[in-house]
Amino acid sequence: MDITFLGTGSAYPSPNRCASSLIFRNEGECWMFDCGEGTQIQLQRSIIRAGRITKVFITHLHGDHLYGLPGFLNTISFGTIEDRDPIELYGPTGLRRYVRTSMDVSRSQLNYPLIINELQITDDMLPEDWEDWQSNYDTVEPQHPSELPGRTIAKDEHGVWNIFENDNILVQAAPLKHRVPTFGYIVTEKEQPGKLDVKRLKELGVPAGPLYGQLKKGESITTSEGAVIKPEDVLGLPRAGRKIAFLWDTCDASLAAPLLQDVDVMVHEATMENEMKEKCVLNGHSTPEMAGEFARSVGAKKLVITHFSQRYKTKDSELKGDEQTTDKLLQQAKDAFQCDNVIAAEDLLTLTIPALR
Amino acid sequence: MDITFLGTGSAYPSPNRCASSLIFRNEGECWMFDCGEGTQIQLQRSIIRAGRITKVFITHLHGDHLYGLPGFLNTISFGTIEDRDPIELYGPTGLRRYVRTSMDVSRSQLNYPLIINELQITDDMLPEDWEDWQSNYDTVEPQHPSELPGRTIAKDEHGVWNIFENDNILVQAAPLKHRVPTFGYIVTEKEQPGKLDVKRLKELGVPAGPLYGQLKKGESITTSEGAVIKPEDVLGLPRAGRKIAFLWDTCDASLAAPLLQDVDVMVHEATMENEMKEKCVLNGHSTPEMAGEFARSVGAKKLVITHFSQRYKTKDSELKGDEQTTDKLLQQAKDAFQCDNVIAAEDLLTLTIPALR
Repeated sequence: MDITFLGTGSAYPSPNRCASSLIFRNEGECWMFDCGEGTQIQLQRSIIRAGRITKVFITHLHGDHLYGLPGFLNTISFGTIEDRDPIELYGPTGLRRYVRTSMDVSRSQLNYPLIINELQITDDMLPEDWEDWQSNYDTVEPQHPSELPGRTIAKDEHGVWNIFENDNILVQAAPLKHRVPTFGYIVTEKEQPGKLDVKRLKELGVPAGPLYGQLKKGESITTSEGAVIKPEDVLGLPRAGRKIAFLWDTCDASLAAPLLQDVDVMVHEATMENEMKEKCVLNGHSTPEMAGEFARSVGAKKLVITHFSQRYKTKDSELKGDEQTTDKLLQQAKDAFQCDNVIAAEDLLTLTIPALR
Repeated sequence: MDITFLGTGSAYPSPNRCASSLIFRNEGECWMFDCGEGTQIQLQRSIIRAGRITKVFITHLHGDHLYGLPGFLNTISFGTIEDRDPIELYGPTGLRRYVRTSMDVSRSQLNYPLIINELQITDDMLPEDWEDWQSNYDTVEPQHPSELPGRTIAKDEHGVWNIFENDNILVQAAPLKHRVPTFGYIVTEKEQPGKLDVKRLKELGVPAGPLYGQLKKGESITTSEGAVIKPEDVLGLPRAGRKIAFLWDTCDASLAAPLLQDVDVMVHEATMENEMKEKCVLNGHSTPEMAGEFARSVGAKKLVITHFSQRYKTKDSELKGDEQTTDKLLQQAKDAFQCDNVIAAEDLLTLTIPALR
């Protein structure tokens, strides 16, 4: 399980920091979170094989998190993978309109099925200036020829958008306060069965193969010699699942707190230093202190800050005048988190998330 | 007068070649032609001051020529220029729908007036597969709050779209054959008045100032001593205007030929080498031979080839295996043009276009 940061800059892409995007990989799955302009260029620079990506989650429809998506969807289609899996998109109401319009005006042909799922926004997520200027999120554009029907995912009775679940993983979303409707995504790995004691299995005369699978699933088996072997005889302790949160633009993530208790890795924006809090919050963003305090309040084990104003240079930059790197933001986040387990993301950094035991 | 190439790659942007875009500068004016994804990153790497750009011309709505536009329009607005001139966009029918939708879903606020002008496409420009899949170019989206009304520019009786004209310059468009409705843009500088003979003017007792301007405009003046001075007494020979053509994606530009006679600089795509002509034309593109022969047929003085398949590496690349640079394409274009006055564009190359005399 790892995370590769493709873009860690806020507002717009620069040669030093691309706009927001990251890749989450787990058990052969490869998912993208946000897709700002230039993401496909960063993918070419990274260790990620773009053709492996099957899901893209969009936090909100600001351009620096979205405008790379049509180009990415096109370029994937130039690849030579035949019969590839569909690409599934997830994002707030309005995503369907944006993707369909972009693909329609450019007459983009796709060699894979595209599924656009929308997380239905609620009235309390609408921006403060909504009465002055209403976006036409709900306009229904004709479906793209390569599209398969997508879902519209509504809030459940606990205030959670349940997006996706399989044997291994659960993906949920919760609203974050920002200038436009915004979601944070929480990925929860399910409890994993313990490891098989292969040495003991050999002693018991169980051949490698389907019987191993049955034991892992918790079923007893009978050997060819008639002995019954129970899972607890040969399985180690189950391994707790990991929980990862992807929280981008927000000045207040507290509505997501119930889903975030004891999160193992929290990716959280920290756009500007503490001293610029007023401007930062006015723009709907967080300081490192806000990110650190919030991470601490939910018992996060590790915090990764990202989405830095382009004023902050990368670690290796030659600084001129009063220019600064993200080191200042990192220290401010550590101070508020009251723990050193914080890192400042950089473009193309890959962070491995080890199994819990 | 100069041209700065921001992106010279076809199909998608890569770390070596960005998607299509160039900047044309003349007499303090700064115009963009096409705006593929990543253009704003290239602008930051270039000598161009992005805030100076006042017009953007889009040849066609394929993503690699278009998808950088919403991000560029947003980022310009982060600049601190107040009371800046409007930005005027020009492009085929459908441009308005794309820009309005992109700006609306992302709730992009602009600190300048935006004017979207459309070049009305004609039925004979529609793609061959139009009956199977009709793009909704004509869908009318609500105007953006920062928009001023734009024009819809129709074909005139000579088959020309007359876009813009001032004292100094004329911009026209003509259709090019490609897979979607596509225009080539032709910029024609008007004949420039000759230089004033300042030494002679001083001898005649004419003070620097408004009288100089009157003479340059071709008007006679009377000095304070009562002498009448005619323009031809103090003006050098007029200087012929330069003609520049921006022709991107096409497999046949012959409909534009009447506007291109004796063009001084023709920018023309050359996506793949001559040996790949079949594939190239199938995709609606040209080989260097096609570009060279066409340039020669209209008496072009200089040819600049661009829009290279990403398979062709930049000049300084370390080549592996059978990789090639654009040198091969350049030689093929020269052979067909029957003249060495050809260059292969590279990202961030600036080409100066000297005055004719």
